[in-house]
Amino acid sequence: MTERLRLKKNADRRLKAGHLWLYSNEVDTVATPLKNFEPGAQAIIEASNGRAMGVAYVNPNSLICARIVSRNPEQRLDRSLLVHRFNQALSLRESLYDKPFYRLVHGEGDLLPGLIVDRFGDVLVCQLNTFGMERLAEVIVDALLKVVKPTAIVFKNDSSGRRQEQLERNVEVVYGELPESVLLEENGVQFTAPVLDGQKTGWFYDHRANRAWLNRQVEGKRVLDLFSYVGGWGVQAAAHGASEVLCVDASGAALERVSGNAVLNGVEDRVSIAESDVFEALSALRAEGEQFDVIIADPPAFIRKRKDITNGERAYARLNREAMRLLGRDGLLMSGSCSMHLAPERLMDVVRGAVRHQDRHGQVIFQGHQASDHPVHPSIPETSYLKALGVRVYRD
Amino acid sequence: MTERLRLKKNADRRLKAGHLWLYSNEVDTVATPLKNFEPGAQAIIEASNGRAMGVAYVNPNSLICARIVSRNPEQRLDRSLLVHRFNQALSLRESLYDKPFYRLVHGEGDLLPGLIVDRFGDVLVCQLNTFGMERLAEVIVDALLKVVKPTAIVFKNDSSGRRQEQLERNVEVVYGELPESVLLEENGVQFTAPVLDGQKTGWFYDHRANRAWLNRQVEGKRVLDLFSYVGGWGVQAAAHGASEVLCVDASGAALERVSGNAVLNGVEDRVSIAESDVFEALSALRAEGEQFDVIIADPPAFIRKRKDITNGERAYARLNREAMRLLGRDGLLMSGSCSMHLAPERLMDVVRGAVRHQDRHGQVIFQGHQASDHPVHPSIPETSYLKALGVRVYRD
Repeated sequence: MTERLRLKKNADRRLKAGHLWLYSNEVDTVATPLKNFEPGAQAIIEASNGRAMGVAYVNPNSLICARIVSRNPEQRLDRSLLVHRFNQALSLRESLYDKPFYRLVHGEGDLLPGLIVDRFGDVLVCQLNTFGMERLAEVIVDALLKVVKPTAIVFKNDSSGRRQEQLERNVEVVYGELPESVLLEENGVQFTAPVLDGQKTGWFYDHRANRAWLNRQVEGKRVLDLFSYVGGWGVQAAAHGASEVLCVDASGAALERVSGNAVLNGVEDRVSIAESDVFEALSALRAEGEQFDVIIADPPAFIRKRKDITNGERAYARLNREAMRLLGRDGLLMSGSCSMHLAPERLMDVVRGAVRHQDRHGQVIFQGHQASDHPVHPSIPETSYLKALGVRVYRD
Repeated sequence: MTERLRLKKNADRRLKAGHLWLYSNEVDTVATPLKNFEPGAQAIIEASNGRAMGVAYVNPNSLICARIVSRNPEQRLDRSLLVHRFNQALSLRESLYDKPFYRLVHGEGDLLPGLIVDRFGDVLVCQLNTFGMERLAEVIVDALLKVVKPTAIVFKNDSSGRRQEQLERNVEVVYGELPESVLLEENGVQFTAPVLDGQKTGWFYDHRANRAWLNRQVEGKRVLDLFSYVGGWGVQAAAHGASEVLCVDASGAALERVSGNAVLNGVEDRVSIAESDVFEALSALRAEGEQFDVIIADPPAFIRKRKDITNGERAYARLNREAMRLLGRDGLLMSGSCSMHLAPERLMDVVRGAVRHQDRHGQVIFQGHQASDHPVHPSIPETSYLKALGVRVYRD
């Protein structure tokens, strides 16, 4: 490889600390103009003194203009390196889980910036979120076939990240054939995942450990699952002995899946659904005097960009406050956030505010994060995004 | 109650946010001189406008000069309120655990500032860390007898907190008789706890969930347990299938307990001990070319006070770096810190630095906190102190 991208003086500090991202204002664009690069092309990154620091793929049109794919300047990301990285990723998951249902590749956390692969048995669902990965689409399929031998591979390329990179939407089965239902198992409970028309890859494996914790707290309890999506929390709670579960979501299609997943586990008599805006449902339930022992408030990201932090924190505060009102005397709130921009201590503060607002007492008895198949890169705070707080709420 | 302690203007903000502590510089000492209070006496706390905010116990000689024991100005902390709080605390633990081995009272987290009670079946071990609790010693015993009906109660009053409050050291069996060995079970593994002469109450229940996670990663692995104390991590690892465990500690007495605990679980053939300063042991093991699959680096608090942060962070960095050197090609480091003054993101940074120092890659696949029987008070960041990071360390 001969293309080189040169950094400004001192702009190599983040890379030295292990980070994988370069911002466009860190590039010495006099020496190496960004506009000379095709989107997704790979190049050697060099410090201002000319020392080669590794290989990155470049996107001149993105704020993050390059992402390191190898610390070895001789080693570009190609089929061979992809096979190696997939093997590394697979060996971690196989050491963690007995069954083939997990996130196989978690982007930067697996040294593969911009690539997500979720595994549902023999079906792999990929998200290629950058131009660099898009250009490797064929070799990615090829390397996955070699390492995992799936019967089908889906590209679920409809993320907001792709829009930012000016990539087209592209949802298709790129290899093999999909079975009628794509099945998965989490914490001993069965589900089908809407891999073509659901959110993200169709399923959120990231809450697995948090759900496992909650599953142990629900026996005989009345449970409310807000923003239930296809029932990840709610159906698991029913399968673990909750006496009654109400799943609320604005999507009728998601709630149909909830019902299907309840049947799949023989708990349809204890799971009901309500199609509604969540805040409206909370008001209505309150007006009816309904109370619950356990409430899950795990919304989609309320904060997508830094500029949304203030409004987003307000939305989390409102949700947690309104949800908490429906808890009985001694209840449990599971408060989740997948917003990377919401710091863990801010979610704690959201919970604190909700407890104080009702003059109740709160005990945070669980602090959870993303599951082990979503590894955090210790140099990249952005890779740690998921929070879950289990809060006992009681009157003294 | 007629004694009142008045706050300065705006000094009630923290209390309104739910915190339980008052600092001496927040008191209107003209209106209500602190020196008028006996250490440990209870008083009504009032805002600068005279509004009663609750009841606190006072220590004029402590930086934290008062701690709220009730938000109800009519309700002092007495036998009746202690019984109520102990019942609340017990009901949480009984909902969490099948067996009576847990922290029963976690100070502020259970609305009982300054009081710790650990339960080992029929034996309770208490730490009364403030003058306010010291003055209630007899009623505490009385209320515990009523709620828990133990066969023995131990006061393990030798904490540094007591020294700060100018309280005397006092380690004694205050009720009943201790059995020859005080037994406990954690994650299915048996231990004896040195409740009279060990660290703190004799055992650290706070890592229970973190150890449970690690226990699932050790089968067939060679494990090094640094600062092993009585073998909480190491003996559990052996009992969960580790092929070989080396426990290192500077205390011969602790290591004798390790051996005893290994025998108790029939794993003495796979557990060995080394009495040594941990850093010296790390050098020696490295000189001998030893390597491990899993290393636990969970030291006693390196940072006890805010002023020790810089030196303490350096010590954590050195420990993690030196420990990581002994990991094989694809190893797992469990990095713990019980220093409240070490922020979670700083421990992440310690790990990052250690990984980079050796030009290896790290994946944080577990972020753990204190177990559920150590509830965090959402208004008191100081009650959230324990961190544990599980880091896969590998060469790319």
